[in-house]
Amino acid sequence: MIPRYSRPDMVAIWSPESKFKIWYEIEAHACDAQAALGVIPKANAEAVWRAKDVTFDVARIDEIEAVTKHDVIAFLTHLAEHIGSDDARFVHQGMTSSDVLDTTLNVQLVRATDLLLTGMDRVLAALKARAFEHKHTVRIGRSHGIHAEPTTMGLTFARFYAEMARGRARLEAARAEIATGAISGAVGTFANIDPAVEEHVCKMLGLTPEPISTQVIPRDRHAMYFAVLAVIASSIENIAIEIRHMQRTEVLEAEEFFSPGQKGSSAMPHKRNPVLSENLTGLARLVRMSVIPALENVALWHERDISHSSVERAIGPDTTITLDFALHRLAGLVEKLVIYPENMLRNMNQFRGLVMSQRVLLALTQAGVSREDSYRLVQRNAMKVWEKGADFKTELLADAEVTAALSPAEIEEKFDLGYHTKHVDTIFNRVFPA
Amino acid sequence: MIPRYSRPDMVAIWSPESKFKIWYEIEAHACDAQAALGVIPKANAEAVWRAKDVTFDVARIDEIEAVTKHDVIAFLTHLAEHIGSDDARFVHQGMTSSDVLDTTLNVQLVRATDLLLTGMDRVLAALKARAFEHKHTVRIGRSHGIHAEPTTMGLTFARFYAEMARGRARLEAARAEIATGAISGAVGTFANIDPAVEEHVCKMLGLTPEPISTQVIPRDRHAMYFAVLAVIASSIENIAIEIRHMQRTEVLEAEEFFSPGQKGSSAMPHKRNPVLSENLTGLARLVRMSVIPALENVALWHERDISHSSVERAIGPDTTITLDFALHRLAGLVEKLVIYPENMLRNMNQFRGLVMSQRVLLALTQAGVSREDSYRLVQRNAMKVWEKGADFKTELLADAEVTAALSPAEIEEKFDLGYHTKHVDTIFNRVFPA
Amino acid sequence: MIPRYSRPDMVAIWSPESKFKIWYEIEAHACDAQAALGVIPKANAEAVWRAKDVTFDVARIDEIEAVTKHDVIAFLTHLAEHIGSDDARFVHQGMTSSDVLDTTLNVQLVRATDLLLTGMDRVLAALKARAFEHKHTVRIGRSHGIHAEPTTMGLTFARFYAEMARGRARLEAARAEIATGAISGAVGTFANIDPAVEEHVCKMLGLTPEPISTQVIPRDRHAMYFAVLAVIASSIENIAIEIRHMQRTEVLEAEEFFSPGQKGSSAMPHKRNPVLSENLTGLARLVRMSVIPALENVALWHERDISHSSVERAIGPDTTITLDFALHRLAGLVEKLVIYPENMLRNMNQFRGLVMSQRVLLALTQAGVSREDSYRLVQRNAMKVWEKGADFKTELLADAEVTAALSPAEIEEKFDLGYHTKHVDTIFNRVFPA
Amino acid sequence: MIPRYSRPDMVAIWSPESKFKIWYEIEAHACDAQAALGVIPKANAEAVWRAKDVTFDVARIDEIEAVTKHDVIAFLTHLAEHIGSDDARFVHQGMTSSDVLDTTLNVQLVRATDLLLTGMDRVLAALKARAFEHKHTVRIGRSHGIHAEPTTMGLTFARFYAEMARGRARLEAARAEIATGAISGAVGTFANIDPAVEEHVCKMLGLTPEPISTQVIPRDRHAMYFAVLAVIASSIENIAIEIRHMQRTEVLEAEEFFSPGQKGSSAMPHKRNPVLSENLTGLARLVRMSVIPALENVALWHERDISHSSVERAIGPDTTITLDFALHRLAGLVEKLVIYPENMLRNMNQFRGLVMSQRVLLALTQAGVSREDSYRLVQRNAMKVWEKGADFKTELLADAEVTAALSPAEIEEKFDLGYHTKHVDTIFNRVFPA
Repeated sequence: MIPRYSRPDMVAIWSPESKFKIWYEIEAHACDAQAALGVIPKANAEAVWRAKDVTFDVARIDEIEAVTKHDVIAFLTHLAEHIGSDDARFVHQGMTSSDVLDTTLNVQLVRATDLLLTGMDRVLAALKARAFEHKHTVRIGRSHGIHAEPTTMGLTFARFYAEMARGRARLEAARAEIATGAISGAVGTFANIDPAVEEHVCKMLGLTPEPISTQVIPRDRHAMYFAVLAVIASSIENIAIEIRHMQRTEVLEAEEFFSPGQKGSSAMPHKRNPVLSENLTGLARLVRMSVIPALENVALWHERDISHSSVERAIGPDTTITLDFALHRLAGLVEKLVIYPENMLRNMNQFRGLVMSQRVLLALTQAGVSREDSYRLVQRNAMKVWEKGADFKTELLADAEVTAALSPAEIEEKFDLGYHTKHVDTIFNRVFPA
Repeated sequence: MIPRYSRPDMVAIWSPESKFKIWYEIEAHACDAQAALGVIPKANAEAVWRAKDVTFDVARIDEIEAVTKHDVIAFLTHLAEHIGSDDARFVHQGMTSSDVLDTTLNVQLVRATDLLLTGMDRVLAALKARAFEHKHTVRIGRSHGIHAEPTTMGLTFARFYAEMARGRARLEAARAEIATGAISGAVGTFANIDPAVEEHVCKMLGLTPEPISTQVIPRDRHAMYFAVLAVIASSIENIAIEIRHMQRTEVLEAEEFFSPGQKGSSAMPHKRNPVLSENLTGLARLVRMSVIPALENVALWHERDISHSSVERAIGPDTTITLDFALHRLAGLVEKLVIYPENMLRNMNQFRGLVMSQRVLLALTQAGVSREDSYRLVQRNAMKVWEKGADFKTELLADAEVTAALSPAEIEEKFDLGYHTKHVDTIFNRVFPA
Repeated sequence: MIPRYSRPDMVAIWSPESKFKIWYEIEAHACDAQAALGVIPKANAEAVWRAKDVTFDVARIDEIEAVTKHDVIAFLTHLAEHIGSDDARFVHQGMTSSDVLDTTLNVQLVRATDLLLTGMDRVLAALKARAFEHKHTVRIGRSHGIHAEPTTMGLTFARFYAEMARGRARLEAARAEIATGAISGAVGTFANIDPAVEEHVCKMLGLTPEPISTQVIPRDRHAMYFAVLAVIASSIENIAIEIRHMQRTEVLEAEEFFSPGQKGSSAMPHKRNPVLSENLTGLARLVRMSVIPALENVALWHERDISHSSVERAIGPDTTITLDFALHRLAGLVEKLVIYPENMLRNMNQFRGLVMSQRVLLALTQAGVSREDSYRLVQRNAMKVWEKGADFKTELLADAEVTAALSPAEIEEKFDLGYHTKHVDTIFNRVFPA
Repeated sequence: MIPRYSRPDMVAIWSPESKFKIWYEIEAHACDAQAALGVIPKANAEAVWRAKDVTFDVARIDEIEAVTKHDVIAFLTHLAEHIGSDDARFVHQGMTSSDVLDTTLNVQLVRATDLLLTGMDRVLAALKARAFEHKHTVRIGRSHGIHAEPTTMGLTFARFYAEMARGRARLEAARAEIATGAISGAVGTFANIDPAVEEHVCKMLGLTPEPISTQVIPRDRHAMYFAVLAVIASSIENIAIEIRHMQRTEVLEAEEFFSPGQKGSSAMPHKRNPVLSENLTGLARLVRMSVIPALENVALWHERDISHSSVERAIGPDTTITLDFALHRLAGLVEKLVIYPENMLRNMNQFRGLVMSQRVLLALTQAGVSREDSYRLVQRNAMKVWEKGADFKTELLADAEVTAALSPAEIEEKFDLGYHTKHVDTIFNRVFPA
């Protein structure tokens, strides 16, 4: 966790205090269920709730763990210090540490996911607003970094919206993957604890009981979860790369908002750099790097080994905190992005008319010229633009083989921009259904 | 693609012949739609179907590509050799190469996924059969590789079934991710082609039109797809590792089927090695390795760059072929796995009674001993078993502090195996609902 | 292995024929050593060399393996068909399959590395030639995609040269990592074979004996090897990305060579796309993806498990073949890259003089203005260029606070390009020492 | 950074205080060099050293950065607060932020590497001591988890020693990779700063001048660096997996030291789990995960973009801290590992004599039986041991086809353990040369 790439709400979910609070709630709910089953006295179960408002003392628990070398036992010992060892003696009855640890991890992941969904909603709202704002702002489309045919800035935002909306749906599915709990005992057989306890605890925490657990909740769920975060991070990178390209000196079709007082370079006062989007590119790499260890965590030995634990202690908080930060950074970036429609036009006209080459090609074939000949005719005129800075339309009008097939008016008509944007509404209706 | 790790059905999906067939079908369906719109003559559209039964000549297409350095143009030139350049001149009208390439890739991925689903069904059927067969075969559960408490072999198969069933659901979702097509032209604006063409082509190929494409179908879909394959591969590894552990010389609770004539080692004739499950471990690594390049493919420049293409030429076939092979290898392995219930009992009894320690612990706390004291009492007797090979029950019966809290009969009762398997039905009902 | 991304020389190293040839040579050399030790009769050892010129029949060996399910045994059986089972009975004496397989893998990797080194030499030669050719071709340096200060195209090539030269040194080290062989028997104890056999076989094959092997050569060596290939691939990507940026329509400082007859787009005849460098970007991802499975291969169980084998069957050939192809593609690309010095000047002057802002800043501080004030003065004039297209020098000359510190002549002098290139020779001497 | 997996010495290297101290030293040394060149007054350079003993105020610097959004400018502003803005005005003259940042990162990595080398030395010493201690402790070698032939525990430690010694050599090389510094200005041309400054600063910090830098030090160096850490982590995992296997209940050939007061399980008091080695398996995954983002950092745009920065802020500290912790955890684990030679013998004899099968095979071929027949004879007797618990030697003596070729005495001799350990000294001499 890097403080400068962290938001407090997400950090709080992963604090030791939050963790111990959830541990406590699981134990207390489990005691309620055990009391309802008659396994432990109701009075003892009720007594556990006396610690309801306690903020657990992390330092004290660490101190105990230094002796026991076992974190859950350290916590239980500390809990007994709060509610009295007599009342505490039924706490954790029939449970194993992982019942607490795994269910807690999933509670934290669910809460983290809810924050991430909020972040995605902010990104989606920003993308949608900018898409409609620039629905008809014409801009050259590029493939391979080379001018292709006109499109609009609104379509660019719309496709990012569609991609992020897919990401949101994936994140909802990922939330369901990890919204399970398990209170099933040492090897998952419920030998010492009734399945009703699991059902009660899960219900109280908003989780689904894991249909079959071993000592742990199966890690294919978490692998899937982190894979989804990795895909979302890659979509963030996708947007970031587009902005970085737009802000290039030679392109300058958009620019990150540059606040008063901000300095672009310690050496070069003229600089205004796309540092937020570059940063998002790096953050995407950080989010993505959790996917491999999460996959390696799946194959635990027999009913469990603990190799996954250290991995999750790191990637649980780090990955969700980084993605959360990245989503809000991205949202702010999109909200305030400065867009230069005039530069878009300037760039598009850089090779005057060249971007209309396909239309001329099609018109020639329609007029009866073979596809191969049409391609040859168009290419030879296009190359003059490319190599000598000629005007494409002028060249075409001067090419006897071309004018043999197309009249000057027909050629002229091929250079109408509206031709390229006529389906923008169709596409918007697909992406933003009423 | 490694021939020894490939099944012909999956290999066929990725052959050049299959690819060109799909290219052809896309072009032909597009011509139909264009004719219906009145853009091209109906006769020309019909003429294209004359090549319906042609197996395209891969060598000839390669020959043309050597000149054009463009694969789709090479194919179109070859197609014209079949249907005549006059009738062929409207083929590909208003389309761009990626309309064909991307839609084809997704058709191939959909077909590959359908084969993978069949493979998963076979794995699921095998796991289910073995789960019910060994529902009550008692076996020691292990955490950290150390004996914990009894479970059953059926529960082991049942949890693998549940994990693979999750994998199957994820694969269905992944199929939906990539079951889209796009015929939207050079930068996705439908400038030169009506959206109706896309709708028709997609419908005929069993795809959904991509709501908004650029020159390409967005690659977050494919990243998600390969991530799902990677998770399934990790689940395969999970099962493989369990089998490898069971077959260890000292454990020998199960063994891969060893066919007559098979040789385990060129040097040591006595060997029977779990080579199939070890191989599955390696294959899992191969499937997983596609996840990073697939994620790196998401951030294409502007309306597309072609960096994703070489990646997909490799991981498209390699990853699906390897996973397909792995699923069938796993299914066969599970179907024929030789299981040794008697060895399971032998292993469980290796440290006589030790695995019942938790029950004694709980009984002591129930009898009024504090949790800390109970733990101490149990641990000190357990350590004698561990270190001196003592019998756990005998030690407990001889420990005055223990017998002060529990009668001999109560101690005796804690060593009943049925206690651990009483919820097997409950769990099976969760995993295999009627 | 994708044929279009493969060179025959590298493919040949990995053919079954090559593999069996090396297997044979290992067995034959081992027989020689065994005969010298008196373990087997000299006549039998000599007899083995009768197969010296045999090209082994891959189909026949596969046929035998279908029964034995063991590839080395299948080969030995086939070898006996060539030299007679009587003379063949001492072949493989005291060896285990892995002695042959692992030593062979390393022979193949060594040969592959030698080809890769040749490819790197071609890349280095091309980079060096272009560096000297454009040593003084002035070009704007960019950080964050934004104009910074002038540099030269020669320096760009020189830094790629330096990076690739580091890569070459790493590859030499990686070659040494995997240039070991092992003939140490079933668990590496030489129980049934004298260490002298290992020494002889390694010597004849140009390898070093592995100091301590188990059944296998340790896989940390191979992990390191593939990691080095991954780093080299990333350096290729680094160069490819630079070229892609240079060829962008708005930048056009360089362009991939476009051969006669080549077509850039099936739809847009005007296109000339940087497809080779984009392809290299993708190939880099493919090379890199082997690094994770190679790392996962390190922790084999006990004296070995066979999980690494399937991984290496794939990444051994695929990764070296892809990198080999990428190196030669890169070399050709650099050799023929079309460079546009006039466009470099045009781009640099786009924001007239702005790139000289740091010099003015330094001059102001030298003239006694505080660093903070100097920065403010430069930035306020720079912003006028940025926002209103003003000329930087003109603005500075009109700013009373600036001219209070610097004379017009001093300001003028700050716009001399030679100032920025005065250390080019120094740097070249570092990169290309005489 | 996870506190429980961190050692203070390594954490300190990455503290903001350490970082600012190095920034300061670079600036101060640069001022000395500039003064020596006559670029700035000697008095001002000397004045900078007044802050020599200052511990910089991290909170204050953060406060300034909140306005400037530029960390180096914030630091320089704060430095001026210490030495006076008049004396401070020549600080950073002609430099760019990255001159400071990149050189600092490398200083930190060099220091981190020196700590890691110390950690590796401790691991090596522990492995060597245990290797000699158990040089002749016989133990069954296993391939595929199946008993193969005898080896010794000392050989196991020796091979881990050899692997770690290779890791140490790689780490030395990796140290050289990143032990460079750059003070070359905005795009690496030394336009505003003499190369002599770089030389002086590097010399004072124990670095080599980067032969050619852009705005940054090239990131292929760092990719190589993190790849080496990843390989070392995999070697740690290799040892950890071996220990986990040895500690399995059924094997129990070794056990992690279990300290008084330690609790293995909250539920099962009898448990002693290999949690340290399992933890090392997880930590290895964490170290390895940095390799992909480090590779993705190589291809920065033009003379640099800042995408690498956030990645390095995370993986710089996290990866070195985790590996450092893992090395010391491993060293402690090896130093105190409890080894059970008697269990090693017990396990080896589990299938009485079966592990000698290869010797019998070889003896039969030596006695004139064909290789195929010998294999068949041995296998049929071995299978009786496997399937019916027979004694291998007894079966062989009762097999007429076997005794036709070998006398009882010859058969007897094949079961001598010394045969397998006769080359232990040879191997030790290779691994631990005098």
